[in-house]
Amino acid sequence: MKIAILGGTGNIGKGFALRWGQMHEIIIGSRDLEKAEAVAAEYNEVLEKYGHMATITGTDNRTAAEKADIIVVAIRYSQLGPVMEMIRPFIENKIIISVVVPMEKNMCYISPGAKHLTVPIESKEFNSEYFCFSMPEAGSAAQEIQKMLPDNAELVAAFHTVPAKKLADLEMELDYDIGVCGNSMYSKEIVFGLVNDISNMRPLDVGPLETAAMIESLTPLLINVAARNEMKDISLKFI
Amino acid sequence: MKIAILGGTGNIGKGFALRWGQMHEIIIGSRDLEKAEAVAAEYNEVLEKYGHMATITGTDNRTAAEKADIIVVAIRYSQLGPVMEMIRPFIENKIIISVVVPMEKNMCYISPGAKHLTVPIESKEFNSEYFCFSMPEAGSAAQEIQKMLPDNAELVAAFHTVPAKKLADLEMELDYDIGVCGNSMYSKEIVFGLVNDISNMRPLDVGPLETAAMIESLTPLLINVAARNEMKDISLKFI
Repeated sequence: MKIAILGGTGNIGKGFALRWGQMHEIIIGSRDLEKAEAVAAEYNEVLEKYGHMATITGTDNRTAAEKADIIVVAIRYSQLGPVMEMIRPFIENKIIISVVVPMEKNMCYISPGAKHLTVPIESKEFNSEYFCFSMPEAGSAAQEIQKMLPDNAELVAAFHTVPAKKLADLEMELDYDIGVCGNSMYSKEIVFGLVNDISNMRPLDVGPLETAAMIESLTPLLINVAARNEMKDISLKFI
Repeated sequence: MKIAILGGTGNIGKGFALRWGQMHEIIIGSRDLEKAEAVAAEYNEVLEKYGHMATITGTDNRTAAEKADIIVVAIRYSQLGPVMEMIRPFIENKIIISVVVPMEKNMCYISPGAKHLTVPIESKEFNSEYFCFSMPEAGSAAQEIQKMLPDNAELVAAFHTVPAKKLADLEMELDYDIGVCGNSMYSKEIVFGLVNDISNMRPLDVGPLETAAMIESLTPLLINVAARNEMKDISLKFI
């Protein structure tokens, strides 16, 4: 399959390219053509080092979308409008995969608490930042994207919980579960296959696009849990 | 510690009573006093069968809240208003634990998809139900409860991902992670302890109350994942 990764020069794009580049034709899309080409060359070097064929190419987002059968939207939520408008004429009859997560960073005050107790357990007081899912008007980034698609393109939301660093490290086993949302069973099954193409990852059907908010909000949840519990590059298992 | 479980005659209440009843004083609260008493007797029988002291008592929600130091709110979201108003005068200087999840059930149509493809992979078409997090005005059930508390009560949100059936089965090992939200570190640490009291469960700090929506929405997510992937009574691990 020909897979375009829009925003493919970013962290998560690198991992997708290196993992899928072993069995699929990968086109890195970027706002910056030269960067896309440089990054594709860099990814190819990694693939060759691991003994794989190196066929990744880099181009601008529009051309990448035009050339591919499957388009992974791995850009920032804030860039969604202009990018989707630009690629719209070139994605009819194609499968779009949204990895997009709208989130915001806030500050909070955690009090030591329970001042009324005479012998409180040892406790801390601190200011800290936390991330929240920032719900778009449509309910999720995926539902926003759905409104910007031509009728005969099919959207699937997935991969929100993959730790980018581990995905890009080909020596890492990824024994994680990936929630997949979408309204077309055909497209979801294609994406299940793409999940299975990566190490030990397991795809799990979460339901229609209307359930996308629940998987998009896993990303800020993972960031918070990692930051507050001395964990790093974590993901999820449903057991 | 004296722990009241409001809505303690429900599925999740049974599990809490049986697990914590082994080392804490448990008071089952219910709208129905007689039911609370009957259920407490039934839980005590189970504890005795497993060789534990059986000291669980049952009473109405108001009396349970009045007698306890820690109040677990395990009632339906729709009952929150009247119950919180009723117990408000009796929960000063106490720790409130919200397990409440506001969710809604909807129907969706999953298309076989990709009609334009001449040789589609085998795919299904079906109607099915799915659950979504039903966001309250305050952002989460926990934040709604916060607005109904006296100033000197401390709220913690936790335990949204515990499978009720496995919690109530004392032979089940629960090797799960429990997200905990709250603005008082003291109260959160008390709750971390209550998580550690249950089998192999591990508490994870998620952040302030503002992050509660992300853990409350894990419940409908788990229900969807279980229903669509032939899984049962599932929970989560952060790895």
